[in-house]
Amino acid sequence: MRERSDVARLLRIAGDLRLDFIDSPALAGNPLGDPSVRPVAVYLPPGYDPEGSRRYPVLYCLHGYTGDVAALLSAKPWETNVVQWIDALIARDDMPPCLLAIVDGYTRLGGSQYVDSIHNGNYATYVVRDVVEHVDRAYRTIAREGGRAVFGKSSGGFGAMHLTMAHPGVFAAFASHSGDTYFRFAHPPSFPQVQRTLERHEFDAAAFVSAFERKRKRTQSEYATIEMLGYAAAYSPRSAVAFDVDLPFDVPSGALREDVFERWLAFDPVERAPRALTELGRLRLRYLDCGRRDEYGLDIGARLMASALREGGLTVRHEEFDDDHRNVGYRYEVSLPALAAVLDRE
Amino acid sequence: MRERSDVARLLRIAGDLRLDFIDSPALAGNPLGDPSVRPVAVYLPPGYDPEGSRRYPVLYCLHGYTGDVAALLSAKPWETNVVQWIDALIARDDMPPCLLAIVDGYTRLGGSQYVDSIHNGNYATYVVRDVVEHVDRAYRTIAREGGRAVFGKSSGGFGAMHLTMAHPGVFAAFASHSGDTYFRFAHPPSFPQVQRTLERHEFDAAAFVSAFERKRKRTQSEYATIEMLGYAAAYSPRSAVAFDVDLPFDVPSGALREDVFERWLAFDPVERAPRALTELGRLRLRYLDCGRRDEYGLDIGARLMASALREGGLTVRHEEFDDDHRNVGYRYEVSLPALAAVLDRE
Amino acid sequence: MRERSDVARLLRIAGDLRLDFIDSPALAGNPLGDPSVRPVAVYLPPGYDPEGSRRYPVLYCLHGYTGDVAALLSAKPWETNVVQWIDALIARDDMPPCLLAIVDGYTRLGGSQYVDSIHNGNYATYVVRDVVEHVDRAYRTIAREGGRAVFGKSSGGFGAMHLTMAHPGVFAAFASHSGDTYFRFAHPPSFPQVQRTLERHEFDAAAFVSAFERKRKRTQSEYATIEMLGYAAAYSPRSAVAFDVDLPFDVPSGALREDVFERWLAFDPVERAPRALTELGRLRLRYLDCGRRDEYGLDIGARLMASALREGGLTVRHEEFDDDHRNVGYRYEVSLPALAAVLDRE
Amino acid sequence: MRERSDVARLLRIAGDLRLDFIDSPALAGNPLGDPSVRPVAVYLPPGYDPEGSRRYPVLYCLHGYTGDVAALLSAKPWETNVVQWIDALIARDDMPPCLLAIVDGYTRLGGSQYVDSIHNGNYATYVVRDVVEHVDRAYRTIAREGGRAVFGKSSGGFGAMHLTMAHPGVFAAFASHSGDTYFRFAHPPSFPQVQRTLERHEFDAAAFVSAFERKRKRTQSEYATIEMLGYAAAYSPRSAVAFDVDLPFDVPSGALREDVFERWLAFDPVERAPRALTELGRLRLRYLDCGRRDEYGLDIGARLMASALREGGLTVRHEEFDDDHRNVGYRYEVSLPALAAVLDRE
Repeated sequence: MRERSDVARLLRIAGDLRLDFIDSPALAGNPLGDPSVRPVAVYLPPGYDPEGSRRYPVLYCLHGYTGDVAALLSAKPWETNVVQWIDALIARDDMPPCLLAIVDGYTRLGGSQYVDSIHNGNYATYVVRDVVEHVDRAYRTIAREGGRAVFGKSSGGFGAMHLTMAHPGVFAAFASHSGDTYFRFAHPPSFPQVQRTLERHEFDAAAFVSAFERKRKRTQSEYATIEMLGYAAAYSPRSAVAFDVDLPFDVPSGALREDVFERWLAFDPVERAPRALTELGRLRLRYLDCGRRDEYGLDIGARLMASALREGGLTVRHEEFDDDHRNVGYRYEVSLPALAAVLDRE
Repeated sequence: MRERSDVARLLRIAGDLRLDFIDSPALAGNPLGDPSVRPVAVYLPPGYDPEGSRRYPVLYCLHGYTGDVAALLSAKPWETNVVQWIDALIARDDMPPCLLAIVDGYTRLGGSQYVDSIHNGNYATYVVRDVVEHVDRAYRTIAREGGRAVFGKSSGGFGAMHLTMAHPGVFAAFASHSGDTYFRFAHPPSFPQVQRTLERHEFDAAAFVSAFERKRKRTQSEYATIEMLGYAAAYSPRSAVAFDVDLPFDVPSGALREDVFERWLAFDPVERAPRALTELGRLRLRYLDCGRRDEYGLDIGARLMASALREGGLTVRHEEFDDDHRNVGYRYEVSLPALAAVLDRE
Repeated sequence: MRERSDVARLLRIAGDLRLDFIDSPALAGNPLGDPSVRPVAVYLPPGYDPEGSRRYPVLYCLHGYTGDVAALLSAKPWETNVVQWIDALIARDDMPPCLLAIVDGYTRLGGSQYVDSIHNGNYATYVVRDVVEHVDRAYRTIAREGGRAVFGKSSGGFGAMHLTMAHPGVFAAFASHSGDTYFRFAHPPSFPQVQRTLERHEFDAAAFVSAFERKRKRTQSEYATIEMLGYAAAYSPRSAVAFDVDLPFDVPSGALREDVFERWLAFDPVERAPRALTELGRLRLRYLDCGRRDEYGLDIGARLMASALREGGLTVRHEEFDDDHRNVGYRYEVSLPALAAVLDRE
Repeated sequence: MRERSDVARLLRIAGDLRLDFIDSPALAGNPLGDPSVRPVAVYLPPGYDPEGSRRYPVLYCLHGYTGDVAALLSAKPWETNVVQWIDALIARDDMPPCLLAIVDGYTRLGGSQYVDSIHNGNYATYVVRDVVEHVDRAYRTIAREGGRAVFGKSSGGFGAMHLTMAHPGVFAAFASHSGDTYFRFAHPPSFPQVQRTLERHEFDAAAFVSAFERKRKRTQSEYATIEMLGYAAAYSPRSAVAFDVDLPFDVPSGALREDVFERWLAFDPVERAPRALTELGRLRLRYLDCGRRDEYGLDIGARLMASALREGGLTVRHEEFDDDHRNVGYRYEVSLPALAAVLDRE
């Protein structure tokens, strides 16, 4: 049997961690020029035997905005990353052994929101088809809907909801931690600072991105701006030409462009849920949580999403806690066992 | 001739400062139970002679939210309040001698927005009728539209725009510093924290206000909440019963209530300007400025207000500067001479 | 009987407030060129009768750094200044009627620390002789040590301790709120930023002060720098020439200058208390409090001062509370009645 | 030839990255109970051939407080970690190919400061003997003083200076980025908050550590406290019993304990430099830099260290830049080529 990887030792986990690289057909030749070869980190619980007969359910983890696989694997003293959490939860028998697959949804603009976009490429297809196929092929998984769940935080939570609504039949459950919802509250507060930042680059997105990439250190406003470009690339692209996106505000006045923002709202889980009750209804678990001091008001979004599900006749597990948007990884202690509990086992 | 007041000496101004108290018929028996007797602080320039024949134009100054006359008169080393500014500007001949009248628009909820409200009382009428009458009666003013301008910062800037639009014929010019405009950006970012704060009081506004008033120190969220109640009292009151207002979000979900927010938008200067071109057109000066880092995005609002005026065929003086919403009193150096320059003189 | 002043009405107090201006012989021709005519604000309780026979004790209030009389009189909704506090405490019978005199200890460098300095002038003498004489002459006071107490916050608390130690026989009690003590912790944390700020002015204090005075807005570092110059002017002046002071760090290295800092420590109440037990012992009340989150570590200083007093065989009233250095005026609710309780009455 | 590791691919470096684990005799049975098996991450430049004849100099990298090897390897979009920096610098030929070894100096209290301590264990010996031996044995290094340099940031910068002074003959150069120096400024500002935090645990360090380790999220004050315990464990241990250290302040008063602080100062590079001129003099490069807004005043420390070296007749490369203590990894662009330039090559 193969030895535990060095990374697994560095993270002091009892299980193992594999770093695979897959070449995604869905991302081949993507317009933004991001690589089609992507890392996927796969956690294997203690006892996992590639030659054995046992098969495991898989939890797919989606990172947040301006994150990637490396960011989710980052570790430091006294903090617990998602791999360390699942390892600990399995070790203390709070959940059955599962695989965890960390998916890379990064783009040059900081993130794909895990949607198929004419501007970014087909990131939803890449996840639900290419990544899942790889994991099912390379590992001893329960290779069916009932053996898979998807979860994430922030944009990763959005992605989890999006993929279960847009691509039913792949995952049997989702968990959204402080996930992007209720865009009416989440996004407009950043529009003024993005408008000001872009004005400093004469509203030329390419000029901004180029300057952003060259900087030694970046301000909070500059991060908000790259994020907004990324959202626009996912929700309101104009063409496959790099940075050719519709912004949700007028240039140079800064006024809200309601026509563009309507396109964003079409992706808002709260708006979509009533129209996606069939897809959401086939799930075994719908899990939402959010800190009651979330800086983006996503706690309101989670409440509204929970209401929308309940009004549609669906159950939902919805929890609130006293914290803000940052460093809420301890919530995995609740969500990972809950997801694992509803998946098929062997 | 009467001596300069002690307050004038304390503020080290060359002119004089009077503190009058007027009993406003418009505020008599106001539903919220605030006093009908209100202070008005009147600055008199050097050379002002109550027995003389010279008459002066008057600049009316409106305070911002959670402010009052005392707050505007507050002084400390190295800072310059509005009275000290006008005194200095007149002393160095940057503007002709004028009177300045600081108006009190305070309510138990922190401010009236200077509008007539079934919940708060008739604060617009109080200003344009009762305060103006008092000043014209008690001082040697140019007692006509051409001798009066109105200005203020933040809610005071809003008030200046509101009064010129809703009560044409009283003032010949307005200046709005970082004034409340484009409510779509300015207000919703606070809704989540207000919703959370009110939830801690079971969404009972009276319970919140009572707790707020008793506290030793108040948090930023609590201030945001009292402000929001004050806006609702001005823009979306439900009755004359204290705290019976419509909030712009649902209880307890927190979702935006678009019907209520539409009532707020009806007061938004940006929305109203196209319908108030006659009233705005009779003004001799329309002055707007805002810092380009305004935390409430009011710089966008000022741009949109300027656009609305220009699209309506009106001129506007619109300036931007590199600062945030706080402590921008140095802008009086620009606005006060500009206002004085367009008023009648003798 | 004279009517209540306009300022008293503005502050909505039941008592009266007088603003006097005294020409202090002690400050005449002071080297720094600050005025010798200074305001003193005197609160008179309800029932005070200048023609009557009753005499009152007087609480002398010293403002903090970068404060002055106007700053202490500043008021705004929901906040309670020292005059409003004493008025309320007397109204609800939590303390007997007293006079309150707010003393001005301001200098061009932001404050005198109420010490006699060859650089600033004789601010201690000015307070204990000139101000006290004026108040005793102009009002119906109990004009003796037993009828006077002194208190203040921050530098005002320091001043209260300094004046009772350096000028025994004037005041019978002191209260120090978050007062400057234990300079070893309180001051060095600012030295690096002061050193950097002065370096931008080539370590020319006059150039810095001149630039500081001209600025529209000042940074926290610039405030820290003017404060440090003010402390040096009080604790380690070099001559009567303006800004000729010894800084507590080397130029340009920034290293602590222990010889200079020793001169500062000679003013530290914690260091002085053991040598001033006679002066401190004649007091009827020694009151200290400080928030346990004080940014300058003054809570440690208050503990050490309390220890020093107790080790010297003296009693002390020492309280701690859960707050930082800012806006702790609500502590007057404790200190003012405590001071009043030990003073002579008629 | 062995393939590049998965971690190297994840970090997108052209070179390779090895994660070794060494069992250090120096750390065996250390009193605090930390593991004696430690990771060391070794970067190998492109072209490195374990079977080849070429040998390379090695740059030893020491992490900062509350860091470890995993923390230094952490990566996220738009940021560049130390491995990515050296890889980029070699790729663009800004420096010759070198090895980089990241050393683990972590303890249960957050860091060893890389000193031999009766309380923590012999971390200096571990680095200069055990780690260096491993690297020289396992890789094709220039296995002598002239082939080695040591560097780090913050506590890592301190470690670099400490090891060259305390263990001459191992490294030929050091670089200290924002390194701990001039403890008089760097440490006392934290004492009050540490004192308050420990008081909440009745000054029982073990109780504090235990609570700290169990928390989901930790405050800045709690981090400052664990750090202070760690410094005390390195600089002023009392015995080999866990947490039996002398704190630099009295309990419960909070007063500075000068006797203990003297023991800390004995480790201060600024204090030691004049006595270590022989050891420092044999170095080929002494490199110091620090941001001029460093929150701990370490820029002053760097100036003083540079002065001490120059006064001792030694040259020093000392640079300042406009930044604070956080995220200054871009300074590697200057330091790594400078270190490499003075080392032996083959």
